[in-house]
Amino acid sequence: MFPEYDIIVVGAGHAGCEAAAAAANMGSKVLLVTMNMQTIAQMSCNPAMGGIAKGQIVREIDAMGGYSGIVTDKSMIQFRMLNRSKGPAMWSPRTQNDRMLFAATWREMLEQTPNVDFYQDMVKGLVIKDGRACGVITGLGHEIKSKAVVLTNGTFLNGIIHIGDKNFGGGRAAEKAATGITEQLVSLGFESDRLKTGTPPRIDGRSLDYSKMEEQPGDEEITGFSFLDIPKPEKQISCWISYTNQNVHDILKTGFDRSPMFTGKIDGVGPRYCPSIEDKINRFAERERHQLFIEPEGWNTVEIYVNGFSTSLPEEVQYKALQIIPGFENVRIFRPGYAIEYDYFPPTQLKNTLETKLIYNLFFAGQINGTTGYEEAACQGLMAGINAHQRVHELDEVILKRSEAYIGVLIDDLITKGTEEPYRMFTSRAEYRTLLRQDNADLRLTELSYKLGLAKEDRMDKVIQKQNDIEAIKKQLHDIALEPGQVNPYLQSLDSAPIPEKQKADKILLRPSVDIHSYVAAVDNLQDLKKYPDENMEQAAIQIKYETYLQKERELVTRMSQLEDLEIPDIFDYKKITSLGNEAREKLTRVRPRTLGQASRISGINPSDIQILMVFMGR
Amino acid sequence: MFPEYDIIVVGAGHAGCEAAAAAANMGSKVLLVTMNMQTIAQMSCNPAMGGIAKGQIVREIDAMGGYSGIVTDKSMIQFRMLNRSKGPAMWSPRTQNDRMLFAATWREMLEQTPNVDFYQDMVKGLVIKDGRACGVITGLGHEIKSKAVVLTNGTFLNGIIHIGDKNFGGGRAAEKAATGITEQLVSLGFESDRLKTGTPPRIDGRSLDYSKMEEQPGDEEITGFSFLDIPKPEKQISCWISYTNQNVHDILKTGFDRSPMFTGKIDGVGPRYCPSIEDKINRFAERERHQLFIEPEGWNTVEIYVNGFSTSLPEEVQYKALQIIPGFENVRIFRPGYAIEYDYFPPTQLKNTLETKLIYNLFFAGQINGTTGYEEAACQGLMAGINAHQRVHELDEVILKRSEAYIGVLIDDLITKGTEEPYRMFTSRAEYRTLLRQDNADLRLTELSYKLGLAKEDRMDKVIQKQNDIEAIKKQLHDIALEPGQVNPYLQSLDSAPIPEKQKADKILLRPSVDIHSYVAAVDNLQDLKKYPDENMEQAAIQIKYETYLQKERELVTRMSQLEDLEIPDIFDYKKITSLGNEAREKLTRVRPRTLGQASRISGINPSDIQILMVFMGR
Ligand SMILES: Cc1cc2nc3c(=O)[nH]c(=O)nc-3n(C[C@H](O)[C@H](O)[C@H](O)COP(=O)(O)OP(=O)(O)OC[C@H]3O[C@@H](n4cnc5c(N)ncnc54)[C@H](O)[C@@H]3O)c2cc1C
Ligand SMILES: Cc1cc2nc3c(=O)[nH]c(=O)nc-3n(C[C@H](O)[C@H](O)[C@H](O)COP(=O)(O)OP(=O)(O)OC[C@H]3O[C@@H](n4cnc5c(N)ncnc54)[C@H](O)[C@@H]3O)c2cc1C
Repeated sequence: MFPEYDIIVVGAGHAGCEAAAAAANMGSKVLLVTMNMQTIAQMSCNPAMGGIAKGQIVREIDAMGGYSGIVTDKSMIQFRMLNRSKGPAMWSPRTQNDRMLFAATWREMLEQTPNVDFYQDMVKGLVIKDGRACGVITGLGHEIKSKAVVLTNGTFLNGIIHIGDKNFGGGRAAEKAATGITEQLVSLGFESDRLKTGTPPRIDGRSLDYSKMEEQPGDEEITGFSFLDIPKPEKQISCWISYTNQNVHDILKTGFDRSPMFTGKIDGVGPRYCPSIEDKINRFAERERHQLFIEPEGWNTVEIYVNGFSTSLPEEVQYKALQIIPGFENVRIFRPGYAIEYDYFPPTQLKNTLETKLIYNLFFAGQINGTTGYEEAACQGLMAGINAHQRVHELDEVILKRSEAYIGVLIDDLITKGTEEPYRMFTSRAEYRTLLRQDNADLRLTELSYKLGLAKEDRMDKVIQKQNDIEAIKKQLHDIALEPGQVNPYLQSLDSAPIPEKQKADKILLRPSVDIHSYVAAVDNLQDLKKYPDENMEQAAIQIKYETYLQKERELVTRMSQLEDLEIPDIFDYKKITSLGNEAREKLTRVRPRTLGQASRISGINPSDIQILMVFMGR
Repeated sequence: MFPEYDIIVVGAGHAGCEAAAAAANMGSKVLLVTMNMQTIAQMSCNPAMGGIAKGQIVREIDAMGGYSGIVTDKSMIQFRMLNRSKGPAMWSPRTQNDRMLFAATWREMLEQTPNVDFYQDMVKGLVIKDGRACGVITGLGHEIKSKAVVLTNGTFLNGIIHIGDKNFGGGRAAEKAATGITEQLVSLGFESDRLKTGTPPRIDGRSLDYSKMEEQPGDEEITGFSFLDIPKPEKQISCWISYTNQNVHDILKTGFDRSPMFTGKIDGVGPRYCPSIEDKINRFAERERHQLFIEPEGWNTVEIYVNGFSTSLPEEVQYKALQIIPGFENVRIFRPGYAIEYDYFPPTQLKNTLETKLIYNLFFAGQINGTTGYEEAACQGLMAGINAHQRVHELDEVILKRSEAYIGVLIDDLITKGTEEPYRMFTSRAEYRTLLRQDNADLRLTELSYKLGLAKEDRMDKVIQKQNDIEAIKKQLHDIALEPGQVNPYLQSLDSAPIPEKQKADKILLRPSVDIHSYVAAVDNLQDLKKYPDENMEQAAIQIKYETYLQKERELVTRMSQLEDLEIPDIFDYKKITSLGNEAREKLTRVRPRTLGQASRISGINPSDIQILMVFMGR
């Protein structure tokens, strides 16, 4: 019934969708098998994309030719650039999305991707021959052949949903859990463990009194995620802010004795950085209130997502506590909050291509690797899709370095350090965050992706144009020297000291208060620059203003790359290096780092261990 | 957590949605509880509405102020008026719909209905006190109170899905079955039984060769379903026609030994009039081919519905057989066809308000009553919603007569005759089908609905205007006498005999070839009529042209109403009427007909039995 595919992707969540799109666009014949074709690219939790560090990831996915950025732009109902008051390394795009439109748009784009076939069924097991994944077995009993398999099962593997002291099997509310895969993988020698995550109640927006909340409108200017020109919405929908209070907390506490988290019913560890409300009031007992974002679920629905109120307390307790929140006096719940516990595979079992170390041609991506978040899942899917394609076509591995992308940081962290709680991205995880900005993701990544055949001409052409513009703008600003009379009125308007004598235009731009758009608008001699697109002007300005920082980070990258480029041969036998401590030998054997740089990041590995390794590698 | 509602509707399929909307619009506080808020108003099977007899029902629902017609009009991708070559009683509107848009539009309309609240959970049981339904108990353990309950569980009660020799629990592919309700009702004395229905495989439109099929475009003129002015699509999408052949049949037969229908795995009886393809080749062995409609699932999806190929044969057999169909040589399946078996409650257990005879304030509507089809479900939902509202507010029952609406025919059939196989509507089930046309549903029903507070001013105003126009048009046509010279050129252009002398304009309209629009356009003296809307002209013309038939049917109605109006007292004790035969006594006791008319339609009741009853009733 089925041809042999190059790649079978199991699961059409954010990871699976990106994996299928990437591999197909590179030329692989892909089958996307998912339990329910009606739920392709469902947002399991909040209808939002991006945010701090996550926004950077979405732009990187887009720069690489992935779809998440385009889908997000097409389905946004609100856009905000977070951290705009800070330096550009911290700027983080975030959207609120129409949940149904997001999923529908993803499905449409996948359907329009010629090499992606679809099949609705539950995958129950893998076909493994000679230590190599070569197909899947479905619930209906089909054996479907392929050259590689990408598993992206999300929260579905043996998923159990908890609400108070009630629990039942499920991969998401009202969806079945998936069985069989964990058991088979464990029998093959994989290690698996449990994690948990949670989601807040969804409520009826008609029951809220917004006059008691703060409005949070979208930005006037919408940058969006995609570097392509996707039309942006003309109107946006506001979110709202409210707060819990001591009474809310007191009521929540009355449910603690029936909380699956506190009674030990849930074994899995939850996300430290998306804690449930009960976690928050437990861990931060001194905090008198917690902020809540009241977020609409779409253009035309009254359903509301209560961001910040994730909970698995008994539903009556959820309800009683909600009622005390200002504006929620008459609240009606559509669906209660719940926690879900599921299997994941500690990601130190993976190579940095996301292929498993145990089984060739088997890749894992997304929540199955212990991460949390759509963006984290999507970028792993992208990289697994790329590498599965490369593997099947006997082409080189594609690995993003920590200095190239947040995606590189994420994968390196996962496979090197593993994770014992749901892993989410933060800017603090990246050592080169001035280099890894949301605004230059295209400059960083599109060329690579274009060479791989993934990003198409349109993206590459735009990047080349951008690069040329930036160089031209920088050169012009450097070549023009401004007389005091030409620029001082502008500087005065900013309360910035006037210049006493002729000065180069780029030097003046270094002043924090000088922003390139008003500068060019105000100073006659700079008029010529107006012909460049805003985005490219902005980029040139960032490069000029932050040159010192950028230079420092680039030097650090070079220095570190001495270690980063030192590849450790696959066959290296750590057990024989008796000069290494026991812990070092064990961890190195388990992680099998690809480079000395990666080895140095393994927890418990000391600089002295690295020196010993260098000696043994003949350096 | 929940207030006490007037009415709880269980299930948000077509029946549940109409029930909730109707009761809410009449002023009841309604809670719609459904297993998954993401699947509100899902079309379980084909993405199409209307068709012969079913199209009439949708227009009736619309005339009554229900939502199905509006939702259908807003989400149609193709419109056809079936049977246009036959008399107007046979004209039947049918649309192809965008599956996702249909569901999204329904949900939006419900959300905009102020009195409807929503809750996502599975109802596991009813709260019954003193023989009266007064709430539900949900899977999460909530007891939610109400004054009445409407059950619309569709195919979900103990649903089992079959594909070849595989089977598993489910209410629809990839959705859970519902448990608990049947068991409780049976313990309360209800009778339940099993039925089955099936659906064809969904396939990848990109894998089809349309050049080998016949195109079936939509009509140029779109009437639509709603009597309100809903904007119609500017473009439409075509369907395609292909055929099975002897080879297809031969391959299908190779799976018969693993067909759940032929091996006895399925107990439930299937729909005679939507048979599976295996049923068709089995029952009509002489037919060399069967027609298939290749129907797109929406504006922007490649998914295709293969209408006419419903099957639960093993999937490989489905696949092999499909490949032999012209245009399907390279077919790819997205999701296989399957059969589903589910509990229903033989509808003779209901009063003609759709309230159960056993439990007060408990109503059943939709597939749970043994019907099949969205339209059949939706109209029952509407009537159950209306009557639940009336009951809760101690108002009169609302019963549509067989002479007033297909809806009346449907409910009377169900409660009087019961059904042992999935019941669908046909024009042949109606004895007054010239009266019950799609074009006059508003004239028949809106006034009643308006009086109930369901249809709003806009509808009533339109109907009054339409009635006035019709009278005016009829009067003018009757008052104008045309000279031969004025009308003969037009008649000659139609090849119709010229008139030798002056004749009334309405008399000339009686000729079959004279259609009112061309007539008015061609004849100068009729110019004045051009000011009336087309629809109203059409209506006047139908009334003039078919006056004889209409008159006959109206007389029949009057004659029959002698029986129809003779109400049998609730307390009537048939067992004591020894002059009735055993069968008659038993059936009358079971059905407890409301009128002598209804009694006369019970199978096994003879005219002599009716005469005996009349004697006992003192007539
Ligand atoms: C209740 C809940 C709360 C969450 N809360 C947060 C939060 O607060 N913050 C945050 O950042 N993230 C949160 N998440 C996580 C976020 O939803 C996930 O990180 C993200 O969706 C993971 O994407 P994925 O592609 O890995 O998996 P998913 O989006 O889970 O998709 C998995 C897909 O695989 C399919 N599938 C699974 N098994 C099989 C099989 N055997 N055969 C065929 N198909 C299969 C499923 O049908 C589904 O389509 C939450 C998730 C859940 C469920
Ligand atoms: C596989 C299949 C094939 C079909 N084929 C045909 C066909 O060929 N021709 C045809 O005319 N019709 C066909 N139908 C029938 C058509 O889909 C139904 O007649 C119609 O959808 C019935 O509407 P309903 O409102 O009664 O129920 P449904 O549309 O089934 O809706 C039931 C709703 O109730 C909810 N629900 C059920 N139980 C509970 C509970 N305990 N608690 C909370 N919520 C609950 C469900 O989630 C769902 O939303 C088919 C149906 C199926 C499933």
